[in-house]
Amino acid sequence: MPKIRKILIANRGEIAIRVMRTCKELGIATVAVYSEADRSALHVRMADQAYLVGPPPSRESYLVQERIIEAAKQSGADAIHPGYGFLSENASFVRACEKAGITFIGPPASAMDSMGEKTRARQNMIKVGVPVVPGTAEPIPTEEQARSYAEEIGFPIMLKAAGGGGGKGMRRVESLQEFSSAWRGAKSEAMSAFGNDAVYIEKYLEKPHHVEIQVFADQHGNVVHLNERECSAQRRHQKVVEETPSPILTPELRAKMGAVAVQAAKAVNYVGAGTVEFLVDVHRNFYFLEMNTRLQVEHPVTEWVTGLDLVALQIKVAEGEKLPFTGTVEPRGHAIEVRIYAEDPARNFMPSPGKIQYLRVPGGPNVRDDSGVFAGYTVPNFYDPMISKLSVWAPTRAEAIARARRALSEYVVKGITTNTRYLSAILAHPEFAGGDYDTSFLTREHTVLLGQDDPKLQEVALLASTLFAHQRDQKKAKTLPQKAGAAASTGGMSPWRLGLRTRRR
Amino acid sequence: MPKIRKILIANRGEIAIRVMRTCKELGIATVAVYSEADRSALHVRMADQAYLVGPPPSRESYLVQERIIEAAKQSGADAIHPGYGFLSENASFVRACEKAGITFIGPPASAMDSMGEKTRARQNMIKVGVPVVPGTAEPIPTEEQARSYAEEIGFPIMLKAAGGGGGKGMRRVESLQEFSSAWRGAKSEAMSAFGNDAVYIEKYLEKPHHVEIQVFADQHGNVVHLNERECSAQRRHQKVVEETPSPILTPELRAKMGAVAVQAAKAVNYVGAGTVEFLVDVHRNFYFLEMNTRLQVEHPVTEWVTGLDLVALQIKVAEGEKLPFTGTVEPRGHAIEVRIYAEDPARNFMPSPGKIQYLRVPGGPNVRDDSGVFAGYTVPNFYDPMISKLSVWAPTRAEAIARARRALSEYVVKGITTNTRYLSAILAHPEFAGGDYDTSFLTREHTVLLGQDDPKLQEVALLASTLFAHQRDQKKAKTLPQKAGAAASTGGMSPWRLGLRTRRR
Repeated sequence: MPKIRKILIANRGEIAIRVMRTCKELGIATVAVYSEADRSALHVRMADQAYLVGPPPSRESYLVQERIIEAAKQSGADAIHPGYGFLSENASFVRACEKAGITFIGPPASAMDSMGEKTRARQNMIKVGVPVVPGTAEPIPTEEQARSYAEEIGFPIMLKAAGGGGGKGMRRVESLQEFSSAWRGAKSEAMSAFGNDAVYIEKYLEKPHHVEIQVFADQHGNVVHLNERECSAQRRHQKVVEETPSPILTPELRAKMGAVAVQAAKAVNYVGAGTVEFLVDVHRNFYFLEMNTRLQVEHPVTEWVTGLDLVALQIKVAEGEKLPFTGTVEPRGHAIEVRIYAEDPARNFMPSPGKIQYLRVPGGPNVRDDSGVFAGYTVPNFYDPMISKLSVWAPTRAEAIARARRALSEYVVKGITTNTRYLSAILAHPEFAGGDYDTSFLTREHTVLLGQDDPKLQEVALLASTLFAHQRDQKKAKTLPQKAGAAASTGGMSPWRLGLRTRRR
Repeated sequence: MPKIRKILIANRGEIAIRVMRTCKELGIATVAVYSEADRSALHVRMADQAYLVGPPPSRESYLVQERIIEAAKQSGADAIHPGYGFLSENASFVRACEKAGITFIGPPASAMDSMGEKTRARQNMIKVGVPVVPGTAEPIPTEEQARSYAEEIGFPIMLKAAGGGGGKGMRRVESLQEFSSAWRGAKSEAMSAFGNDAVYIEKYLEKPHHVEIQVFADQHGNVVHLNERECSAQRRHQKVVEETPSPILTPELRAKMGAVAVQAAKAVNYVGAGTVEFLVDVHRNFYFLEMNTRLQVEHPVTEWVTGLDLVALQIKVAEGEKLPFTGTVEPRGHAIEVRIYAEDPARNFMPSPGKIQYLRVPGGPNVRDDSGVFAGYTVPNFYDPMISKLSVWAPTRAEAIARARRALSEYVVKGITTNTRYLSAILAHPEFAGGDYDTSFLTREHTVLLGQDDPKLQEVALLASTLFAHQRDQKKAKTLPQKAGAAASTGGMSPWRLGLRTRRR
């Protein structure tokens, strides 16, 4: 297969820029596409060429397959990198690229088909012996059948309404004794909520962690995994903080999950970068959740600990090269990523679009900023409000946490509101520092993480200060008369407060 | 020894900020000092406290030992980090700290004494068997003695005037046949230039490389080395680009030079971070040049390939901790640093102080920005015009070069002139890409590196384009009618031109 010489990046924001950076390093020309709302976006400026593909919202521009293909043809691009989101997991787009003779940098359409729909993916995984969360997936006709199934998969279990979500018609059942009344309660609640009393059963996972395995496959049947990412810090199923290695994985569990992820990828003849997501319960059983058939937002943490450039690897695989390694890759040190959003945590995380008046990004050792914005740029309100990803590396997890907090404290963003203070509060929380935070962590500790003047938060700050090996006493010292005013305001502040002050600037 | 709780950083600019970053991560409070010209400097803003120590120039502020000590006392700092330059290699300052009961984060005064003066350091090294550039160091009375000494150390040799420098009274002698006339010529030229015909002999090193070894010693007699840095890209004895590993070192030579550097440090009972500088000739003989008894500007490249935080290590050593490792540290991948100066290469590198109107720093994978400035900051004309250090890491040297050029192309600095284009030209030069560039490289290729429109430079660009494995063809493609104006101007540009265009913004 010939070398790729020009890539159209069918995306916007930080991920478009991320892909372009690697292209530049490889000497590959780049083509941007953009909507009318993105005329002045950074990804347009960084590209060698750029094509307007329509107005916002995305369905009229970034999601219009024909326009993307047309831009690729006109620009002479021989490949398309889809980034994440938008058309990245759209099998019909993959087929359209194929038809146009353009290399799609991602898995074949067939692999997407196999993994795209949740129920189908689940069936495919069950077939090859990949563990899935035990459950019926289909409504159960009678209480007797339901009870016997519940006994089979073991308590605790969840009863869930088939007709809708949002917690309605949902019951957690701890034991056989409780079953009958829970069954009736769930059914009657489901009926009144959805006009449908159908209920199915799923095993209740205690304190589940979201742990995912990065896999990579070439066109020659080689499949490897690049270890895990711990993504349990989620708000409304949206990842907020990611790290690797996972603090709860043993080398044995890592090997086991890695092998299963490779098995899952092989089962669908996967090619390229993919991520197999698992839930891991308190007993360290793990269950297949879904497979993301694309580059993941949080791929930088894997790049930090492996030293690999995953985008470069995607391109090489798309060119037909063999994976440059086999077997396992030993992770080196620890990496953490936090997602910087233009949003206001204090106002229920409402997006905060607008003009960035001033911007200063963190620097120094082992800090990486993947940003899609710049000073003077107006964050539009049509797209995901993530403006940047900050990731750090350090030899140990405790050092990585300290580094991430230090880096967050260096952010200066004026003109829009961001969640940097909220992110710092997460990193400083004792449950996060302890490492065993499950997917309910952010929801459970919501008020603590938000309430700056909450006495509970003060307590958290106090606790956090004892958790880092090198935390030292920082007494406010007497100052010389000629002390600068600017510096005076920060004199003697604790690191906790320093972490918080960025937003006040 | 008790833990350090508060550190005064007796420096300014990027190195003051570098030290503070580590302090914050370790939970150590920071105290800045600043001159009247630095009231609004970044290091003052980042510190927990800040003290004015006098007006510019440095001799009236940053170099006034009593004021620094006084600020440390008043702030309650229990330690002083000197950075590099200023008081960092001043033994009397170390003694003043000692007397005031303040920990100096650096070697003891006695080690500075032993290494501070070049002739004395040379004598000390000769004593313990460390190779130095063969020469007499003292004037030689007669031609006969001189000739016999020249034969002893072997041709080619240099005759140098003892009374002054600047190339006057200097003769390179290739063989015994040439000796007599060269001797007389050097002496008469020395007499007319300096009124003193004294001449001494030094071995002439062919195509010397500047290669230095990072050493680290604790207070318990443990000394290790952290491999080398190649610093031959120098302009007027000022390093411009540094990298590690050195492209010319074999594992055997690395081990040998490392052992000699450790031996040199041990000979002077060294403690803390130090750098032993060597010249390496075309035959790969190496000779002690000097020892820098402090943190080096270019320490980030060592941090990249070792994963260590050298400032954290300095602090731990100063606290009395043992080095956390013994033996050798295997370097991982390749790191390159370039020094960004506020200067105009086209105007003989004249400093270009002034207000930074706009600033955008590079980001993405494995790019590190150690900056001392920010948008809106006025670069004063009292100090070294280095405003930032850009360093990158990649698995291989070729990838690191491509990454450094990509990162340089992302710099946007408005309001002042910088040397980013010059740096990119260095990285693109075939001699640099080849790896065997000696200390004369930048001087020799001066016009090539500067002359943007020089046909020779075009040739360099062409050659460079063949040197990277992944360099691809980048044909200018036809564009769609709706193509954005902003992007149009960069359409189809080669990476070479993209690397150069940053300065035009």
